[in-house]
Amino acid sequence: MYIRNKDIRTILEKYKEISLLNHISALLGWDLSVNLPINASSGRGKQSAYITEKIVNLWLDPEFKKLIEQDYPNTLNNEEKGILRNLRYGAKYYYRVPKDIIVEKERTSSEAYPVWQKAKQENKFEDFLPYLKKLIELNQIIAEHIGYSKNPYDALLDRFEPEFTYDQGKVVFGKLQPALTSLIKRIKKSKLYFETDPLLNTDITYPQTSQNQLLNYVVRKMGYDYNSGRIDISSHPFTTNLDRYDVRFTVKYLDHDFRDSITSGMHEAGHALYEQAINPDFSETPLEGGVSLGIHECLSRFWENMIGKNPSFLKFATPLFQAFYTDQLKEKDDQTIARLFNQVVPGFIRIEADEVTYSLHIILRFEIENELINGKLKPEDLPEAWNEKMKKYLGIAPETNSQGVLQDVHWAYGEFGYFPAYALGNLYGAQFLAKMKKEIPFEKSLEKGELATVLYWLNENIHQHGSLYFPAELVKKVTGKPLDSSHFINYLENKYSEIYKLKKS
Amino acid sequence: MYIRNKDIRTILEKYKEISLLNHISALLGWDLSVNLPINASSGRGKQSAYITEKIVNLWLDPEFKKLIEQDYPNTLNNEEKGILRNLRYGAKYYYRVPKDIIVEKERTSSEAYPVWQKAKQENKFEDFLPYLKKLIELNQIIAEHIGYSKNPYDALLDRFEPEFTYDQGKVVFGKLQPALTSLIKRIKKSKLYFETDPLLNTDITYPQTSQNQLLNYVVRKMGYDYNSGRIDISSHPFTTNLDRYDVRFTVKYLDHDFRDSITSGMHEAGHALYEQAINPDFSETPLEGGVSLGIHECLSRFWENMIGKNPSFLKFATPLFQAFYTDQLKEKDDQTIARLFNQVVPGFIRIEADEVTYSLHIILRFEIENELINGKLKPEDLPEAWNEKMKKYLGIAPETNSQGVLQDVHWAYGEFGYFPAYALGNLYGAQFLAKMKKEIPFEKSLEKGELATVLYWLNENIHQHGSLYFPAELVKKVTGKPLDSSHFINYLENKYSEIYKLKKS
Repeated sequence: MYIRNKDIRTILEKYKEISLLNHISALLGWDLSVNLPINASSGRGKQSAYITEKIVNLWLDPEFKKLIEQDYPNTLNNEEKGILRNLRYGAKYYYRVPKDIIVEKERTSSEAYPVWQKAKQENKFEDFLPYLKKLIELNQIIAEHIGYSKNPYDALLDRFEPEFTYDQGKVVFGKLQPALTSLIKRIKKSKLYFETDPLLNTDITYPQTSQNQLLNYVVRKMGYDYNSGRIDISSHPFTTNLDRYDVRFTVKYLDHDFRDSITSGMHEAGHALYEQAINPDFSETPLEGGVSLGIHECLSRFWENMIGKNPSFLKFATPLFQAFYTDQLKEKDDQTIARLFNQVVPGFIRIEADEVTYSLHIILRFEIENELINGKLKPEDLPEAWNEKMKKYLGIAPETNSQGVLQDVHWAYGEFGYFPAYALGNLYGAQFLAKMKKEIPFEKSLEKGELATVLYWLNENIHQHGSLYFPAELVKKVTGKPLDSSHFINYLENKYSEIYKLKKS
Repeated sequence: MYIRNKDIRTILEKYKEISLLNHISALLGWDLSVNLPINASSGRGKQSAYITEKIVNLWLDPEFKKLIEQDYPNTLNNEEKGILRNLRYGAKYYYRVPKDIIVEKERTSSEAYPVWQKAKQENKFEDFLPYLKKLIELNQIIAEHIGYSKNPYDALLDRFEPEFTYDQGKVVFGKLQPALTSLIKRIKKSKLYFETDPLLNTDITYPQTSQNQLLNYVVRKMGYDYNSGRIDISSHPFTTNLDRYDVRFTVKYLDHDFRDSITSGMHEAGHALYEQAINPDFSETPLEGGVSLGIHECLSRFWENMIGKNPSFLKFATPLFQAFYTDQLKEKDDQTIARLFNQVVPGFIRIEADEVTYSLHIILRFEIENELINGKLKPEDLPEAWNEKMKKYLGIAPETNSQGVLQDVHWAYGEFGYFPAYALGNLYGAQFLAKMKKEIPFEKSLEKGELATVLYWLNENIHQHGSLYFPAELVKKVTGKPLDSSHFINYLENKYSEIYKLKKS
């Protein structure tokens, strides 16, 4: 990387401190989730808040702000442009939204969180409603400050997936939703469809040491560098970057289900492989780290679903599973294992959803958020709107708001516009996969467990670029086409027609 | 705690940031020793250096400096006085020593460290000699800047044990050395003396899980609060304070020796119990944390040696050891176990030394450091001086400098004056023990494993005070007398006469 522009060199010098504080903040967060003794949470809260405040102050430094906002010549190179673009993007929230609004949002969500927890427990939507209203209002105000060309929801979407708009979502999700709803109906009619999971039998236990050995084997096959990271246990698995050479992730082990540690472990390792393979020149600059939530989820869900639950990979893995769990898995052949990893059952809860139903949970939230932010749906009418869409898209409606509109923490945190990135990840992933299959012997590599071939392709085409390209540009660069949901639809059609022996639609 | 003085209130407000940064720095250090992936060390180095620089800058802030150095009325209360005294003590190094000297010392020791490592490996004292000379010179310069009334070595000693001087050391150590040397001679003549350790047999293995269970049991008995700390594994056990409610320590497990994890675990838990019991009002003030290295080592060595290796406690613990290690310890009664925990063998290496020989290793270094800093011993004559004193005090002399003058890292780090605090700990501990025995049924409690009685006494008399009193003041307050090495001499005489069936001297 060669930075010619003198002012951008100055920016990079200043940015190093932000990067360093971000990494320190990441350690405080990692340790909180993995190690913290219960009495230490208040102290840790103070430590994290202190570092966050230092970071915000560096962003708000007038000289830094001036350098970011001033005009630059048209002759900047790719990296220089990327650096400026990322800084202008990152600074938007702090530079445009008045500090008292940011503070009020933080205060309100701190108050809202315990209320939401209790309301969810007691199934009392009406208790959470006043906070929800206030948080929607604040998001509307924030959207006005940030600015947008057409739809205030766009200002919020952009915070989590740069440049993504409601109109784009309408096109890609609009095509996806009916295709998924119809695929689910067909799967449910298959003779091979089953709702009760024969592996979820509390009489059958899968020892944690075996799960851990298997996961380590697979993660090593994927190419995770243990010298530049580590794996720990936490109740909610996550990945975090403490340094270019310290990318850690966590897993959890379920006593009665061996699949979860493998696939959710591969999910987190997918995040980690991205961060571990970014061009080292980008370290400590605004080009470091993955470019967006959507691209990150794309890569993690790619490893989790498109590899970890791929029948070819499971063909390779079945003998391993049987060697580790001889008694538990006796008489299960690789086709049965493939069905066990790819069970499709419409349910109420997003985070428990399978690969086919998952995106419908997101599309529902995307449509509802748009209506809330635009004032077309009153918060008090939310439960009704929610249940109606659940019925329409997934064929089922929850009996309680706890299982419906109250299930996610995001709104209690005051975050609107976050969800779509999860579903975008699936779409990006399938489009990348279609391209990858033209360039490497994908299924054959998986059958042989040769995951390095896949990693090499991802490193070359995606990982190394870090935050150099914004998502839409990256998709175009890698696949030659703009984002198109038909790849994901085709992928699911083919995979699940095979697994459930469906007639092609 | 009630702080009336307005300026001291301002100081405390400012100090909070130093305290918070100290805790963040402690996390960076803890994670480095417990978790860090090998490739991440350079990144972590930068993070730690950044936080350290912030801390130094806060100390050097002119307004803070003025508040610390200005005159205060005589009417300050105990806490106010303690706060000022600790700050003036803590600031001495930064306020008096010119920055370029500090930087040069840091640079020289960074260069010296790898040279020392190699010189030790290859037994080449002459390779390390030029660095050692330079570091001694720099310490002489630092001593001049810090100032002293009589002996430049005092300025260095004070950095590690406040107010401790060479003259004091000469009195207490001068009495201790001949007593120890003579006790060792008598022990070596005992029929029960043995050099080869029957437990150090690589055919006998003590499973790590059992060692871990036993340690947890003992540490809980001691009163360690697991909700305000945690125990991990690291190659060099240590204790660190990440917050008033987050005091962590580490242990290591030797496959072929079950004693080490118990006694060195009790050592670290001893440090931790101190930090966990300090008056919470002192948190985030200059009164937080243990007062000195010497008092900290006093408490840790108290638990390690005066409790963990106490025959009464081992009487209680023997059935536990036998239950966990039925095969390994068969036919070992509690008297044999007591001898196994209290084996005395003069050796070359300080960190492997037993309770009796340990202080002699320190006294040797204390005398040598004094001569080096005062220019009475030339660095090139060090090996000879070392070996001569080893022969005189311990009856043995090393065959190589690697086993002699090159063994410790402290001088390569550029630290002179550090060692004596280790031996002072033993002296403080025995003096506290003598007092404790008058007030609680010490041996009886140990026989019953009732360690809470001991902790309660320590909390009341020592722990709670944190850094309110300087060591000499604390010793006086608790025991009514100044430091006197006769308590430690009597303690060893009685204990080892009993264990080795010696005639009383």
